[in-house]
Amino acid sequence: MTSPELPAPFDPATTELGCWLKLPSSIAAEAASLLGFDYVCIDMQHGLLSRSDLTPMLQAVHPHSPRALVRVPANDPSTIGWCLDAGATGVIVPLINSADEAEAAVRAAMYPPRGDRSTGPARAAVIYGNDYVHASNTSVQCIPMIETTGALGSLDGILSLPGVNAIYVGPSDLSVSLGLGPGNHDGETAFDDALTAVLDACNRHGVVPGIHANPSLATRRLEQGFRIVTIAEDLSGMQGAMSGALNTIRGD
Amino acid sequence: MTSPELPAPFDPATTELGCWLKLPSSIAAEAASLLGFDYVCIDMQHGLLSRSDLTPMLQAVHPHSPRALVRVPANDPSTIGWCLDAGATGVIVPLINSADEAEAAVRAAMYPPRGDRSTGPARAAVIYGNDYVHASNTSVQCIPMIETTGALGSLDGILSLPGVNAIYVGPSDLSVSLGLGPGNHDGETAFDDALTAVLDACNRHGVVPGIHANPSLATRRLEQGFRIVTIAEDLSGMQGAMSGALNTIRGD
Amino acid sequence: MTSPELPAPFDPATTELGCWLKLPSSIAAEAASLLGFDYVCIDMQHGLLSRSDLTPMLQAVHPHSPRALVRVPANDPSTIGWCLDAGATGVIVPLINSADEAEAAVRAAMYPPRGDRSTGPARAAVIYGNDYVHASNTSVQCIPMIETTGALGSLDGILSLPGVNAIYVGPSDLSVSLGLGPGNHDGETAFDDALTAVLDACNRHGVVPGIHANPSLATRRLEQGFRIVTIAEDLSGMQGAMSGALNTIRGD
Amino acid sequence: MTSPELPAPFDPATTELGCWLKLPSSIAAEAASLLGFDYVCIDMQHGLLSRSDLTPMLQAVHPHSPRALVRVPANDPSTIGWCLDAGATGVIVPLINSADEAEAAVRAAMYPPRGDRSTGPARAAVIYGNDYVHASNTSVQCIPMIETTGALGSLDGILSLPGVNAIYVGPSDLSVSLGLGPGNHDGETAFDDALTAVLDACNRHGVVPGIHANPSLATRRLEQGFRIVTIAEDLSGMQGAMSGALNTIRGD
Amino acid sequence: MTSPELPAPFDPATTELGCWLKLPSSIAAEAASLLGFDYVCIDMQHGLLSRSDLTPMLQAVHPHSPRALVRVPANDPSTIGWCLDAGATGVIVPLINSADEAEAAVRAAMYPPRGDRSTGPARAAVIYGNDYVHASNTSVQCIPMIETTGALGSLDGILSLPGVNAIYVGPSDLSVSLGLGPGNHDGETAFDDALTAVLDACNRHGVVPGIHANPSLATRRLEQGFRIVTIAEDLSGMQGAMSGALNTIRGD
Amino acid sequence: MTSPELPAPFDPATTELGCWLKLPSSIAAEAASLLGFDYVCIDMQHGLLSRSDLTPMLQAVHPHSPRALVRVPANDPSTIGWCLDAGATGVIVPLINSADEAEAAVRAAMYPPRGDRSTGPARAAVIYGNDYVHASNTSVQCIPMIETTGALGSLDGILSLPGVNAIYVGPSDLSVSLGLGPGNHDGETAFDDALTAVLDACNRHGVVPGIHANPSLATRRLEQGFRIVTIAEDLSGMQGAMSGALNTIRGD
Repeated sequence: MTSPELPAPFDPATTELGCWLKLPSSIAAEAASLLGFDYVCIDMQHGLLSRSDLTPMLQAVHPHSPRALVRVPANDPSTIGWCLDAGATGVIVPLINSADEAEAAVRAAMYPPRGDRSTGPARAAVIYGNDYVHASNTSVQCIPMIETTGALGSLDGILSLPGVNAIYVGPSDLSVSLGLGPGNHDGETAFDDALTAVLDACNRHGVVPGIHANPSLATRRLEQGFRIVTIAEDLSGMQGAMSGALNTIRGD
Repeated sequence: MTSPELPAPFDPATTELGCWLKLPSSIAAEAASLLGFDYVCIDMQHGLLSRSDLTPMLQAVHPHSPRALVRVPANDPSTIGWCLDAGATGVIVPLINSADEAEAAVRAAMYPPRGDRSTGPARAAVIYGNDYVHASNTSVQCIPMIETTGALGSLDGILSLPGVNAIYVGPSDLSVSLGLGPGNHDGETAFDDALTAVLDACNRHGVVPGIHANPSLATRRLEQGFRIVTIAEDLSGMQGAMSGALNTIRGD
Repeated sequence: MTSPELPAPFDPATTELGCWLKLPSSIAAEAASLLGFDYVCIDMQHGLLSRSDLTPMLQAVHPHSPRALVRVPANDPSTIGWCLDAGATGVIVPLINSADEAEAAVRAAMYPPRGDRSTGPARAAVIYGNDYVHASNTSVQCIPMIETTGALGSLDGILSLPGVNAIYVGPSDLSVSLGLGPGNHDGETAFDDALTAVLDACNRHGVVPGIHANPSLATRRLEQGFRIVTIAEDLSGMQGAMSGALNTIRGD
Repeated sequence: MTSPELPAPFDPATTELGCWLKLPSSIAAEAASLLGFDYVCIDMQHGLLSRSDLTPMLQAVHPHSPRALVRVPANDPSTIGWCLDAGATGVIVPLINSADEAEAAVRAAMYPPRGDRSTGPARAAVIYGNDYVHASNTSVQCIPMIETTGALGSLDGILSLPGVNAIYVGPSDLSVSLGLGPGNHDGETAFDDALTAVLDACNRHGVVPGIHANPSLATRRLEQGFRIVTIAEDLSGMQGAMSGALNTIRGD
Repeated sequence: MTSPELPAPFDPATTELGCWLKLPSSIAAEAASLLGFDYVCIDMQHGLLSRSDLTPMLQAVHPHSPRALVRVPANDPSTIGWCLDAGATGVIVPLINSADEAEAAVRAAMYPPRGDRSTGPARAAVIYGNDYVHASNTSVQCIPMIETTGALGSLDGILSLPGVNAIYVGPSDLSVSLGLGPGNHDGETAFDDALTAVLDACNRHGVVPGIHANPSLATRRLEQGFRIVTIAEDLSGMQGAMSGALNTIRGD
Repeated sequence: MTSPELPAPFDPATTELGCWLKLPSSIAAEAASLLGFDYVCIDMQHGLLSRSDLTPMLQAVHPHSPRALVRVPANDPSTIGWCLDAGATGVIVPLINSADEAEAAVRAAMYPPRGDRSTGPARAAVIYGNDYVHASNTSVQCIPMIETTGALGSLDGILSLPGVNAIYVGPSDLSVSLGLGPGNHDGETAFDDALTAVLDACNRHGVVPGIHANPSLATRRLEQGFRIVTIAEDLSGMQGAMSGALNTIRGD
C-alpha cells in the first residue's frame, strides 16, 4: 500500500482556485475534482448534505484534487474531528467571532499537544497510512471564517494563533453583519474597508487570505490580494446552464 | 420560474390540524401532505430521521401542504438554520426552559437584524426565489415548545418575544416534568392547570397555542382553545391499522 | 453462532395471515413483524422499493416473523436468486401464465438438481449457516401468482409441479384479465368461478391456496378456503389512519 | 385530497422543451422542474441512477413540471410498469428495433385491454387518486426511441401503433448505427436523411417527433420540425459551468 | 406482540467480550452479532457512520446480540437521547473530563426524576413495548469513557454517580493525554498506572471496568481485571484478512 | 483535466491477484483497492449490492486499483452497458452456457461495429474523457464465466470469440453443475478434469484463465496455470477475523 503524502499547508505565494459543493453528490464531487481546481470544498453548513454523503464525496475528491476541504456546519469539536477522520484535508469553520472561538476550532482540528482532537482516524488512516496521527498536525488546515463584525474586531487575535495558516471571508454574512443586504457589496465603504482590513491583517501575520467569490468577481478578488478564491459552485452552475439554455431557445 | 409565496404566520383566528412524521419516508410525507392537513411536521428529535432524509421529505411536502415544519433535535442554531435552508417553513424547538433559550431559538431562525441566521438558503432559494432572504423573517415560524416546568415558569418572557407567534405544548414531557408519568393526564390538576396557564398566557400575548394530540384527544384540545393541533402520526397510525386488521381477523 | 432453522414449507392444515409492505422502510418492516403476522411480504413489483432497501428490510423481519417473503418484480431468475441470497424465505412470482413459466420460477429458486439457482447465498449463509445450500431446496417457497386467464387455464400444470407448495391469487389483475375492472369482484360470476377453480385445483394437488385481501374481505376468503391471506398493508393502512383522523376531527 | 389531473398526450401543435437528468439528485430534479421546462426526463439507461433514486426525483418533479418522463434502461415490461407506478407520466423506451418491440413497450405501459400492465399503482394512486387505473391509458405516454437502422426500417410499423403518440430520436446511437461516430452528424447525408425520414413518417402518422439535442442544436431541430426537444442536461451543464469559470479565471 | 425484556445492567461478576463497528453496514452489524459477542458497539465518534445508518444497524443487532451499544460522537444530550430512542441499549460517552460531565451524560440517558431525557422512544417502544419509558432507567447503560487526564483526576466523582454501572477506557486517547503517542503503551509507567488507578477505583465503587482492546491484548486486559473488553473490529479485521491473503500469496 | 488512460487488456504473461466485494460499502472498496490488489471485483450477482451502491464503490476503486471489475447479476445487455457507463473497466458475466450467450455478452460490452452497446458513457466519460467511446472497445474486458457443463461443452466456441481475452471459472457452481456439492472439489476427477479442460482451451486460444479462489487455494491455482486469481473477499474476511478473535480469547 502506497501511502500518499498529506498536502502541504496553504502558502501565501500560491494562488488556489476552488470549487464549492452544495449537492449531496459524489458524482458532482468527482467531476469537479477532475476539472483541475486547486481545492474542492464540501459545504455542510448551507449545502444539502449530511454525514452520510460526506464519505463518498471525500472518496471521489481524494486522489484527483490536491485538497478536500469541508465547511463544517458549526464550530463543534466533535464534527470537526469527524470530518477530518473521514479524510478531509482541512476544515473551514463558519461564524468565528473571536480569538477564543478560533482557538477552539484549532484545538478541535489538532491532536495533542496543540489541540484536543481524539485519535481514531478511520478513513484518514486508510488513505494516509498509520503515520497519519503523527503527520496530521502539520498538514491539516483549520481555516476560520471572517464573516462577522466580531471577527473583524478580533483579526489580530485570530490571525496570530498558531495553526491558523489561512482564513476565509464569507462576504454575504459579512455584508449582513455590517448592515448591508446579502451578497457582495463592492463599492460600499464598509464592505471595501472590511476586505482591506482582512487583507492587511493577513499580510501582517503571514496568513493566506481566502474568500468566497464567483466567476465575475474572481479576477477582482485576486487583484485585491486574495490567494484562496472559490470561483465555481455545483448547484448554481447547473441552474445557470439550464436556465441559459431555456432562455436562449425560448428567447425569453 | 414562478416563485411561490412563503406561507403567512400562524393566525389566532385560524385552526390548523397537522400530521406528525417519524419515519424517514418521503412517500409517507407526500401521502400525508396530499390528504389535506394544514401542516406537516417532520420530527428530527424523536423521529427515526437524519439530515439525509429531510430534504426529500421537505420536497415531497412542499407544494402540497401549506406548511412544512420540522421539529429540530435540539435548540442548536446550526441545525435550525440548516433545516430552514433545506426549505422548512418553520421549526418547532423542543425543551425550551426560559426566555433566554427561546430568544436563542428565534435568533437562530431569523436573519439580522432580528437574529443571527447565516445566509445561504440553498433549497429555500431554489423554491422561493432569490428574494427569500429578504422575505424570510416575516414568514418563517420559530415555535418554542412548552414542555417543562421551566417553560411554565417563564411563559410571559417566552411569549412576549418578538418573532414568537406560536408555541407548541409537548404534553408527555410536560407531564413527566410535573412528576406525572408519560402521556396525557387530563383530569390531573397539575396537568390541567398547566394547559390552562399556557392558554391564558397565549391569550394575553396574542400567541397561537399549539399542542401535540391524537384523534381521540383532538376535539377536547380544540374546545380548550388550542389552535394548532397535531392529530395524526405516520408510525403509530400504520401500526394501529395493522394490529387492528390482525385483531379483527384473529378475534384476539 | 447458533444457526436458526429455516422455516417449514406452507402447510394446507395451517392458516397464515400476512402483512404486505410497499414502503422502502425497515422500520415499517420491523414494526409489522413484531405485531405477530405469520408472514410479511415485501413487494418489489408494485412497492416503491429497490434492491438497496431489501436487505435492511429482510434484516428487520428475520427473527421476528416466521416467514420473510418477497414478491419479485418479474419472473427473472437472476432477481429470484438474489432475493433468496439476501435472506428471503420465499418468493411470490407475479404474472405466471403457464406451467412452463412456473417451472422457470421454480428452477430459479432451487439449487441443482431441481433447479438452476447459482450458489453464493451471501446473507442467507450469514443467518442460516454454511449448511444453507444443502437445506435450502426443502425450505424455500416458490409461490406462483394466479392472476391471469393464462394461469387459470394452466392450473393443473402449474399446481402439479414439484416445488410448488402454495400459490397466491392476485385478485385485481385477475379481475382485469377477466374483463372486469381493478379490485375484487365478489358476486361477479367470472370472478367467483375463478376463485372456486383455484381452490378446487389446490385441493386436487395438495397445494396451499393464498390470496391478496384486506381487513374487510379476509374472513370471507378464509371461509372460502384460502389458507394464506394477506390482510394488512403499510401504505394504505397509514393513509387510512391519517385520513380517518382528519375526517373525524373536521367532520368531513 | 385534491386529485390533480393527469397530463394530456403530446400534441403535434405544441412544442415542448425539456431537461435531461443523469444525476441521482432530487435537488437537481426540483431545480430543473422549477425553471419552467415543459418536461423533465430522468435517464435510467445511461444516467447514474437506481430505482432508489427514482421516487424522490419524481416527487421533486411532480407538481412543478407538467411531465415527468423516465427513460427506462431497457424495453422490459416489469421496469416500465414500475416506473409508471412510481409516478412517471410517460416512458421513453430505448433501442426499439421493430414494430413488435414497440408493441411490447406499449403493452407494458397500458392496462388491459390495450396492454398487459399489472395493476398496483403505488405512488401514482397517491398523487392521482383512485381513478388512476381508469384514466391512465389515455394519459400515459409510451415513447419509442428511434436510434437504430432497425427502427428506421420499421418506421411505419412503429408509428402506426395505437398508443404511440410520440417518438424520440437518439442521434448518437443512430449515428453509430449508421456507421458514423457518436454524437450528431448534421451535414452527413446518412444522418440528415434519417432525420428527414423520421420527420416525414411522423407527419404521415400524426405522431409527435422528439429528439435529444443541446443548446446549440436546439433551434435547428425545432426548424427541422421536431416538437419535443431536449435542450439541457444536469451533469454536462454543471461541468460546463465549472470548467467555464476555471478557464475564464486561469485564462487557459 | 411479545415484548422482549430489556437487558440487565453490566455485572462485575460477568466478563463481556465485544465487537466494534466503524463501517456503515447493517450486514457487518448482523454478521458480528450472530457470531456470539456479548455486545456490539456502533461507533459514531470515529466510525464512518451517520444517523441514517444507525437504525438499520441497530435493527440488525437487536435480537441477536444481548447488547446494542452506541458510542455517541459527543456528550450531547440530544444525540444521546436519539440513539436510545433508536433502540440502543446503552451509550458509551467519549471524552468525559469531570464528574459534572459524567452527570450530564447520565441525565441525558435517564428519564426524570434521575435525568432529563425527553419521552418519545420511537423504535425503543416498537421493540420493547409501551412499558419502555417505565423500565428504561433500570436497564439503559450510560458508560463514561475514561480517556483523559481530567477523567483520571475525577475517578471517584465519576464512578460514584448513581447510574454509572460501567466505564470504558479509551487507551489511545488516554496515552496521548498522558503525553505518550497514540495506541497502547503497556510497560510505560504512566499508562500502566492509569489502568491500575481505573481498576482500583472501579473496585472501590462496584463499577464494571471496560476497555478498548484487540485480539493480542485481550487476554492481558482480562487478567488485569477488565470485564468489558472489545476484542474485534470490522474495518481493521477486514483489512487484516485482505492484506494477509495478499502477503501470503505474493510472499511479500 | 488529465484523462487517465484506460487499462490494457488482460495479458497471459501476467498474473493478477484480486479481491472480491460483496458488501455495499465504498469504504471496503477503497480499503481493498489501496492494499494493492491487481483488480477489485464488485459482485452484483451474489453480493448484497444494488445499482445505488455501485457508483460510489467504483469511484472509491478507480484511481487506486488498476482494474475495477463488476460481476453483473445476469447476461443482460442493459445492465452490462450500465455498469460500464458507471466506470467499470470490465464485466464478469455469470452462467454463460454457450458461444451464443458469450457472443451476446461481448456485444453488450462493445460499441458498434463489434457490438451493440448504446452510447452515453456517463461517468466513464467523466473519468476517461470524451475519447472514451473510441477507445473503449480495445480496453473494456468482457469475461465470460465458465461454471456450467454447458460452458464446458462450448469452450472452443466461447474462447475463440473476438473480444474474449479472459474467462473466469466459478468453481462452486461448476461443482454443483457436475453433480458435486458446492465449493471446490480438488481431487474429484470430474472437477480436476474440468479445470484442466479450461486451462487447455485457454492455452489453445490465447485466452487468460481466471478462477475464484481463496487464500489457501490460491497457490495451487497459480501453479495449475490460472493467471487471474481472486484470493480475498470482504465479508468472509471480516467474519473470519471477528470469529478468530472470539475463538482465541474464549478458547472455544
